[in-house]
Amino acid sequence: MTVNITDALARITDMWSQRTVAAVNDYEVKLAKVHGEFVWHRHEDTDEFFLVVSGRLTLQLRDGDVVLGPGDMYVVPKGVEHCPKADEETAILLLEPAGTLNTGDAGGPLSRPAVPLA
Amino acid sequence: MTVNITDALARITDMWSQRTVAAVNDYEVKLAKVHGEFVWHRHEDTDEFFLVVSGRLTLQLRDGDVVLGPGDMYVVPKGVEHCPKADEETAILLLEPAGTLNTGDAGGPLSRPAVPLA
Repeated sequence: MTVNITDALARITDMWSQRTVAAVNDYEVKLAKVHGEFVWHRHEDTDEFFLVVSGRLTLQLRDGDVVLGPGDMYVVPKGVEHCPKADEETAILLLEPAGTLNTGDAGGPLSRPAVPLA
Repeated sequence: MTVNITDALARITDMWSQRTVAAVNDYEVKLAKVHGEFVWHRHEDTDEFFLVVSGRLTLQLRDGDVVLGPGDMYVVPKGVEHCPKADEETAILLLEPAGTLNTGDAGGPLSRPAVPLA
């Protein structure tokens, strides 16, 4: 099945909720829209790949910020605390093992499993 | 390290040669430019994720063609024979386990391991 990023993002209206758009073995490609500040968390077992499709994403790390614009890719290594923040509505593509929770070790009200794109 | 897709693609001039731009655990995100017809091959051990960044990619499959334009994503399941073809210069992003060879089981003169983006 072909999925177009632009079409898929147009169907996402809520923030910080990841939608699975492709499975690659036991990894998932996910899309999300984000706006505002997320929560500090880490993924103990996996790296996390970010690609900004549109907007601007700041990955707050304990030793400084990484600011990503359209087309920028960045990998947060496993175990590294981070807190994503977006001052405008921002669309991102994520890649990580299936089952990786958005809030990692932190939990909280924004914690939710990725779901297939409706 | 942040890598911008557009900047990275500007540094790739040869066709069908994959450049690794990110490692995610034991998976790799790779970029390539393609033009012309590749070779029929399969990857016995892995799915292969394609995202077209620019241009147009035809994934010839034994049961028909899949035509991908900018922003289109598609996964060729493991074991499925395919032969990529691009009638114009086309830029793609690939995702698969590290060490996956571009020509899969087919070998031949276009076979080469992915190398880090210089």
